[in-house]
Amino acid sequence: MTAGAAEFHQRLKAVADDVETALSALLGSAPLPGETLRPARLLNAVRYSSLGGGKRLRPFLTMETARLFGADGEGALRAACAIEMIHCYSLVHDDLPALDDDDLRRGRPTTHKAYDEATAVLAGDALLTYAFDVLADAKTDPDPAVRAELVLGLARAAGFGGMIGGQVLDLEAEQSTAPHEAEAVIRLQSMKTGALLHVAVMAGAVMGRATLAAREALSTYGAALGAAFQVADDILDVEADEVALGKRAGKDAGRNKATLVAALGLEAARERRDRLAAEAVAALDRFPQGADAHVLKEAARFAASRTS
Amino acid sequence: MTAGAAEFHQRLKAVADDVETALSALLGSAPLPGETLRPARLLNAVRYSSLGGGKRLRPFLTMETARLFGADGEGALRAACAIEMIHCYSLVHDDLPALDDDDLRRGRPTTHKAYDEATAVLAGDALLTYAFDVLADAKTDPDPAVRAELVLGLARAAGFGGMIGGQVLDLEAEQSTAPHEAEAVIRLQSMKTGALLHVAVMAGAVMGRATLAAREALSTYGAALGAAFQVADDILDVEADEVALGKRAGKDAGRNKATLVAALGLEAARERRDRLAAEAVAALDRFPQGADAHVLKEAARFAASRTS
Repeated sequence: MTAGAAEFHQRLKAVADDVETALSALLGSAPLPGETLRPARLLNAVRYSSLGGGKRLRPFLTMETARLFGADGEGALRAACAIEMIHCYSLVHDDLPALDDDDLRRGRPTTHKAYDEATAVLAGDALLTYAFDVLADAKTDPDPAVRAELVLGLARAAGFGGMIGGQVLDLEAEQSTAPHEAEAVIRLQSMKTGALLHVAVMAGAVMGRATLAAREALSTYGAALGAAFQVADDILDVEADEVALGKRAGKDAGRNKATLVAALGLEAARERRDRLAAEAVAALDRFPQGADAHVLKEAARFAASRTS
Repeated sequence: MTAGAAEFHQRLKAVADDVETALSALLGSAPLPGETLRPARLLNAVRYSSLGGGKRLRPFLTMETARLFGADGEGALRAACAIEMIHCYSLVHDDLPALDDDDLRRGRPTTHKAYDEATAVLAGDALLTYAFDVLADAKTDPDPAVRAELVLGLARAAGFGGMIGGQVLDLEAEQSTAPHEAEAVIRLQSMKTGALLHVAVMAGAVMGRATLAAREALSTYGAALGAAFQVADDILDVEADEVALGKRAGKDAGRNKATLVAALGLEAARERRDRLAAEAVAALDRFPQGADAHVLKEAARFAASRTS
């Protein structure tokens, strides 16, 4: 491992620890002003769905981008947690019997298995709703314009023109027997996975009051990283075994899932992944605050080369 | 019908028409900036779940409250639509087989019956997410502080300490065989139904830049109206027949639902309903802009006396 990669993993771990602590505090049992009470069973299911696991890549991207501008404080951590809540809710709902019907997630029973289906639906709804509560609260940023921009960006990325839309396209693709065109798969993935990774980067830029030029560079970075991440996932599915993934591997092909490995072939998918990672890294070359950008560059390499 | 009641019904209908038009425009097929595309099947399910039905009582409360301050323009209509989206999403998810398992809603097949369960879960998620998009967009109000306040208020009312929490308590109560204490039922209902009706009123106050005194009066009004509405619903369930409601009537008692009729008895429930309606009306007596408040007073009487 290079020194840069080692630093990246160190910082990824540090952010994951901070996110765990902050999420646990945000998901405490005491009601906030305007809340009546947080029912124990629901709160436990929400905590189960969001604590104790995951690389926390999205919060990492928010925090590390904010850090470029010296803005990686408590407010950025709250924004990072809000984005992670959206990610976690999407997993809870995607795992439901009516959708992907998964029993395991990160080696643990999925929320509807650990609790029940009704609780899983509502725990997902609660995480989704609470993400916007956290962003809109003055604790996240004293400037309401920043808070409104964070809400709008996250809602749009996570909504029916983004993440949820991508999930629907993915389910439709799976039910189809036709082969999947690469262009459609790329668009689907940019919605289902890419939009949230992209907005995680952009939230850091918003918190950091980035200039337009800096935002454009970070937007290119986020889009390329998001695309690389998903191709890497498709490749991983073909290569990995069940134990390493904590979920059933190889299932994509068995289900006519829309993957780029299926659309392009394994070699072309690998080439695309490496080209996207290089594009993400290059976008940061023109970035003014280059001194700290090397950790984000490592993140792009990691997103493309991860083995789990 | 009194002249006041006639005016109320006229305005309720006018707002419902405006909401229908505005919701349909908000749920168009053209993607907004930052969206990739809105998949047709998902968009159709979202439109099916939110258009063409309902009294639109929550949007009415927002618009009519905003009108007290001369603020019932396009922005208030967007805020009203956002609150209605939350109401509609909650119905879609509550109707799911894992929750209330309802096949009919307002005399039409529920979303998971008209489409499928996966689409219903995701259409609900999309409506929930889009509500915050609409509120955070500068089109709703030029002042970002107003937008952030709207988002925070709605997220908190709809979240695990409010509406979703109330739904969980309701499901738990149904699974219990113990009789329900009135105090617990009142708290449950204030969360499940009351919180969203209350925030619908308060959103109008926020749009109208209401003074603290006006907000307090409106908050009392909204809380009393919300509570009256739910007792009336409990009473209605005992009295109404299946055809009038468009859903299976009498099912509350069959399921050990936590209702105030069960906890208090029918007569005491009726007394409570009438007392709450009077309290809502009285809260507006001390309201400075009394000239327009009579329609809101009629709304409280309507919420308590409705027959469907």
